[in-house]
Amino acid sequence: MSFSDKFHLRIPGPTPVPARVMQAMQKPMIGHRSGEASSLYLECSAKLKLVFGTKTDPLLLSSSGTGALEAAVVNTVSPGEEAVVVVTGAFGDRFAKIVQKYGITLHRLDLPWGKACDPDLLASFLRQHPAAKAVFFTYCETSTGVLNPVRELAQSVREHSDALVIADGVSCLGAVPCKMDEWGIDIMVTGSQKALMLPPGLAFAAVSQRAWKQIEQNPTPRFYLDLLAYRKNLEKETTPYTPALSLLYGLAEALAMLEEEGLPRVFARHERLKTMTRAGIKALGLELMTSDADASPTVTSVYGGREKWEAETLRKELRALGVGVAGGQQHLKGKIFRIGHMGYCDELDILTVLSALEIALIKTGVPVELGSGVKAAQEVMLHV
Amino acid sequence: MSFSDKFHLRIPGPTPVPARVMQAMQKPMIGHRSGEASSLYLECSAKLKLVFGTKTDPLLLSSSGTGALEAAVVNTVSPGEEAVVVVTGAFGDRFAKIVQKYGITLHRLDLPWGKACDPDLLASFLRQHPAAKAVFFTYCETSTGVLNPVRELAQSVREHSDALVIADGVSCLGAVPCKMDEWGIDIMVTGSQKALMLPPGLAFAAVSQRAWKQIEQNPTPRFYLDLLAYRKNLEKETTPYTPALSLLYGLAEALAMLEEEGLPRVFARHERLKTMTRAGIKALGLELMTSDADASPTVTSVYGGREKWEAETLRKELRALGVGVAGGQQHLKGKIFRIGHMGYCDELDILTVLSALEIALIKTGVPVELGSGVKAAQEVMLHV
Repeated sequence: MSFSDKFHLRIPGPTPVPARVMQAMQKPMIGHRSGEASSLYLECSAKLKLVFGTKTDPLLLSSSGTGALEAAVVNTVSPGEEAVVVVTGAFGDRFAKIVQKYGITLHRLDLPWGKACDPDLLASFLRQHPAAKAVFFTYCETSTGVLNPVRELAQSVREHSDALVIADGVSCLGAVPCKMDEWGIDIMVTGSQKALMLPPGLAFAAVSQRAWKQIEQNPTPRFYLDLLAYRKNLEKETTPYTPALSLLYGLAEALAMLEEEGLPRVFARHERLKTMTRAGIKALGLELMTSDADASPTVTSVYGGREKWEAETLRKELRALGVGVAGGQQHLKGKIFRIGHMGYCDELDILTVLSALEIALIKTGVPVELGSGVKAAQEVMLHV
Repeated sequence: MSFSDKFHLRIPGPTPVPARVMQAMQKPMIGHRSGEASSLYLECSAKLKLVFGTKTDPLLLSSSGTGALEAAVVNTVSPGEEAVVVVTGAFGDRFAKIVQKYGITLHRLDLPWGKACDPDLLASFLRQHPAAKAVFFTYCETSTGVLNPVRELAQSVREHSDALVIADGVSCLGAVPCKMDEWGIDIMVTGSQKALMLPPGLAFAAVSQRAWKQIEQNPTPRFYLDLLAYRKNLEKETTPYTPALSLLYGLAEALAMLEEEGLPRVFARHERLKTMTRAGIKALGLELMTSDADASPTVTSVYGGREKWEAETLRKELRALGVGVAGGQQHLKGKIFRIGHMGYCDELDILTVLSALEIALIKTGVPVELGSGVKAAQEVMLHV
């Protein structure tokens, strides 16, 4: 049996929320225009700067990550203008869908799901589309576990185009380095329910001076997602609309936790979690979806479907054991499962998942040596 | 002195969150596509139907109330089409701003702030604007404490126009009766942080069959706020984007509380809180902003500024005593203060506010008889 409240949530978001953060969210409500609320916004904004690697104040939106993706589109490019979207999976595809919805001319650079985008490939694509006003790509592609080389991609855009560089960091910011100012990224967005260890409901967007100029001139109608309103209100130490206060309380605490651990250590932990997970999966003879070079420190995709076992059956077995992993999206449905290892996740959590996975594999009739996946991960833990 | 964590938040939202709801929000995260999450959406949706007075499933948006206001506009009327907006205060004005932002031809029916809209006046205004595709108005106008007669306004629209009837119930739904199906309201929206006793971050929209037809044909680009995406996903027992899960846990609990008390009793309680507040204010010789007929059961506005005392000074004194009331918005800034009495608010809370108000008035040099406001409210409590 397994206690239902001991469920090990190892999907790539929503991720588990630490008790400290849960507790912080219990504070009583306050007026959203009060001095107390202003202090909260400023505290969160200041600490978020380090996560984004920027000197500008990240803006706080009360929405899912998709709200921030849409904000990044509607604020920068207007109908009839051109945009390049790099699609390495379902969330690149979402950027493309938003771009199309708004009547923006879409130049779509599709890559095989599971592969990162090569900066040279983007460069040559940009040479074919010199009029693009913005280039959109994902940092971590949640649907495959690919980490795109955003630094190099940004450099490539800057060298070959005047387009804004816009990145979706929803499923990795806070777990991987980000120096958006230094790397030349114009807009970086993220959400609360991934590496930031919060429930869903908040999204963030940090915007460069260069992007603001384009945003100021963009006539696309927008209201709730109008970033200019967020900037104007942040100058007055407030938000344009009532923000999700309890999540902001939690955010301040989660950011304090990241500060205490120290961002370099946080990033190293996620690297270790990735390496442990991959070592375990390999030792069990399962097929990883991404190469070592392309793999994200936050989520690992594993191929099923082609062996004797089926990804969805395996997920059900894992669920019965008290471990939740995600399935595949779109054409990968039933073909892969995904292990989330970001945010409030440590080494023992990975050993737990791997040990449960071994049981689940045996139960679904896949012959694996019990303990072999765990052992491989332990070796990483001890020696890397 | 006053304990800072005993602060009596009596603004018209965010409102205090009951301990039960706080506790419910502490549940661990779950996958937003899991069966558990589906049960949660369905439970909330079923209970919300009673609050809205509809047989359709209210849609769950993760945004502030303004997100839902914008959704009501962009989904129904397209650029170049006409809309009527009844403006009885700052939130009617917000509807008008959204309508203008989207290039919709605005016919604005302005009323003096503090007065409700007369259904006959709306009827004659509609005769001048027969091409309007939708009529927007607020149920409770938060900025003044006016409750518009939405039932009669809806009837007026239905008799004189084919326009959709769209109402903003953000600061009253859950505290006042709403029978949107019976009254002929096509879209009703509300938010979490008012009478529903939750932190901000969730908004809701219930939509009539008649409105869906117009929405299906509306070409206005929209993505995060596209109600069709919410309807399609609700049919699959899910939401299009990751919802604010912790707030949904809280919502289920808050709706259970409303069910236990019984909606007729909830409405009667709010009526009593209004009558007590108004009796107390009158007994203290202060001027109410609205007539008894136009007054909302959820918020009461009181004129300052014209006497020896000043609304903002009074608010500061109240704050020092541990009571938070709201100031005026737009041209009413510094001229009124507003007492919120909705959601998790009972009779003793009103006596507390009034007793603190008496102290604050004395401290700001306004001669009032101590206890006289409290007494008038107690009389209501005992005899009405």
